[in-house]
Amino acid sequence: MLVRDDLEACNRLIVDRMQSEVSLIPQLAAHLIAAGGKRLRPLLTLSAARLCGYRGARHVKLAACVEFIHTATLLHDDVVDESALRRGQASANALFGNKASVLVGDFLFSRAFELMVEDGNLEVLRILSAASATIAEGEVLQLITQNDTTTTEAQYLKVIEGKTAALFAAATEVGAVVADQPSARQAAMRDFGMTLGIAFQLVDDALDYSADQAALGKTVGDDFREGKITLPVLLAFQRGDDAERDFWRRTQEERDQGEEDLAHALTLMRRHGALDDTIERARLYGEQAIAALASFPDSAEKTALADVVTFVIERAR
Amino acid sequence: MLVRDDLEACNRLIVDRMQSEVSLIPQLAAHLIAAGGKRLRPLLTLSAARLCGYRGARHVKLAACVEFIHTATLLHDDVVDESALRRGQASANALFGNKASVLVGDFLFSRAFELMVEDGNLEVLRILSAASATIAEGEVLQLITQNDTTTTEAQYLKVIEGKTAALFAAATEVGAVVADQPSARQAAMRDFGMTLGIAFQLVDDALDYSADQAALGKTVGDDFREGKITLPVLLAFQRGDDAERDFWRRTQEERDQGEEDLAHALTLMRRHGALDDTIERARLYGEQAIAALASFPDSAEKTALADVVTFVIERAR
Repeated sequence: MLVRDDLEACNRLIVDRMQSEVSLIPQLAAHLIAAGGKRLRPLLTLSAARLCGYRGARHVKLAACVEFIHTATLLHDDVVDESALRRGQASANALFGNKASVLVGDFLFSRAFELMVEDGNLEVLRILSAASATIAEGEVLQLITQNDTTTTEAQYLKVIEGKTAALFAAATEVGAVVADQPSARQAAMRDFGMTLGIAFQLVDDALDYSADQAALGKTVGDDFREGKITLPVLLAFQRGDDAERDFWRRTQEERDQGEEDLAHALTLMRRHGALDDTIERARLYGEQAIAALASFPDSAEKTALADVVTFVIERAR
Repeated sequence: MLVRDDLEACNRLIVDRMQSEVSLIPQLAAHLIAAGGKRLRPLLTLSAARLCGYRGARHVKLAACVEFIHTATLLHDDVVDESALRRGQASANALFGNKASVLVGDFLFSRAFELMVEDGNLEVLRILSAASATIAEGEVLQLITQNDTTTTEAQYLKVIEGKTAALFAAATEVGAVVADQPSARQAAMRDFGMTLGIAFQLVDDALDYSADQAALGKTVGDDFREGKITLPVLLAFQRGDDAERDFWRRTQEERDQGEEDLAHALTLMRRHGALDDTIERARLYGEQAIAALASFPDSAEKTALADVVTFVIERAR
C-alpha cells in the first residue's frame, strides 16, 4: 500500500486522541476503532493528498478527523437502527447501552473538530462541518422514508448521498485542499469521492440481501427486517405485480414478517434482477469516479485510487 | 433588557439557520427552540461581548452557535435520560422518537460548527469545540456515577463542570474573544461563566427535589427516579445513619422504589439540611462569579450580568 506509513501514523493519532480521563470513552471507542474497520475514509484523504502532490504531514490529522466523524455516525447509527451486529461483532450499543453510544459519539465528533481547529485551515473546517450537517440530514431522511414503499429513487439517492457519499466526498476534497490545489482539482477530487461513495452504498445495500454474515460482518437481511427502503427493494417493488407489492407493503411498511419472508424477498429480487441492477448502477458510478481522476497525470497514486473503486465494486461478487 | 435587540437578532438567526429541506429537522428543532427556553447561554455571550465593549454584530452569530450546541445536548440528554418532560412539555424524544432526536441533535451540532466557521475565528472554534468535548465527557461521567452512592463530591463537581458549566464558561469567554480583549479579561469572563454554571446546576439539582412541576417545567423527582447521584443525595447519604444509607442504596443503586419513597427522600434531605446546603454552595459559587467581574469598570452591562447571577440563585426560593 502506497500510503502505508501515513495510515500507520493516522492509526497512532486516532488511538492517541480518543483518550480521555473518563475511561469508558476510550474503552467504547476502541471497541469500534481498534476492532479495525477498513479505514476506507481516512485512506481516501491520505491517498487524495498524495495524488495531489502533498508532501507534508497535515493530511494525517485530517484523515483522523474523517475517521472520528465516521465512527461517531456509526455509534449514533447503531443506536437509531437498534443493530445487533457491527463489523461482525456485537454493536457498541448492545454492549455498552444506547446512552453511552450517543455520548461517546458526541465526544468523538467534538474531538474531530478539535483536531481540525489545531490544523487551522478554515476551508477544511467548512468542508467537514458542512459534510457533518449533510450526513445528519441524510440519516433523518432515511428515517422518514423507512417503511414507506412510495419512496422514490430520487429520495433514495438523496439519502445515500447524505448518509454515506457526503463524507467520502469531503474526505477526498480535503486531501486536495491540504495540497493547496486549484479549485478545479478540488472539485475533481470531491466528485471522485461523491461518486465512489454512492457506488459504495449501492453495493452495501445489495450485499445486505446477498452476503453471508461472515463476509459482510453484519447480519443478512437487517435492512429487510427494519423496513429500510433501499434500491433493491424499490426495483423489486416497481417491477412486481399486485401480489408482490402487497408482500412488500406487509413486510416493509407494516413490518409484519414471518420466517419465510426474507427468503421470499430474495426470490422476488432475483426474479426482477433487482440485485444485479443495483450492482450495475454501482458500476456506473464507479466509472464516473474513475473519470473524475482523468485530469490527474498517471501515477502510482492515481492507480491506487482507481483500485479502490474496483475494490468497492468487486465486494459485490 | 440591555441586549434585547441582540437577543431578537439571535432568535431570528436561530430560526433561520435551523432550516433544512428535510422538514422533520426544523419541526423537531422548533419544538425545543421555539418553545422558548430561557436563552440563558446566548444571553451570556451577548452580554459578555457588550460588557467587553464590543460594538459589532458577530456576537449574535456566536450566541446562536452556543444555543445550537445547548439544544443538541438537550436532545441527546433527553434520549439518554428517557425523560418524559422537558420545559413542561413532552420531550422531543417522546414525541418524535429517540432516533430523530439523536440525528437532529447531530444536525444542530454540525450547524453550530458551520456558523462558527462562517465567523472564521479560530480561537472561538477552539473554545467551543473543546467545550463540546468536555460536555460529552461530563455526560459520560454522569452515566458512570449514576446509581452509585459511593460517588464522591469531587466526582459530582466534575460531572456538573462538564455537563453544564463548560458551556457557560465557553459562552462568556467567546464574548470576550470577539471583543478582542486581553487574555486576563478573557480568563475573567471564562471564570464568571464557569462559576455561574456550577451555581446554576447546583440550584437545578436542588430544585429537582423541591420545585413544583409547573415552576420548574419538568417532573419533580426525575433525578430520584433515575438514581442520579446529585449533591442533595450525596449530602443526605453522608449525613445519614445506617438505615438511611440502606434506603438510598435500595432506591438509588438498586432502583427499587415504592410510592412513598420520594416523600421519604425529601424528609431525609430536610432532616440533614441537604437542600439548604446545596443552595448555600450555589450561593458561594455565585459570589465567585460576581468577584470575577471585579476587574471590569462599573457599567449597566456589568450590573446586568450580576443580576443574572442573582436570578440563577433566586430560582431556588
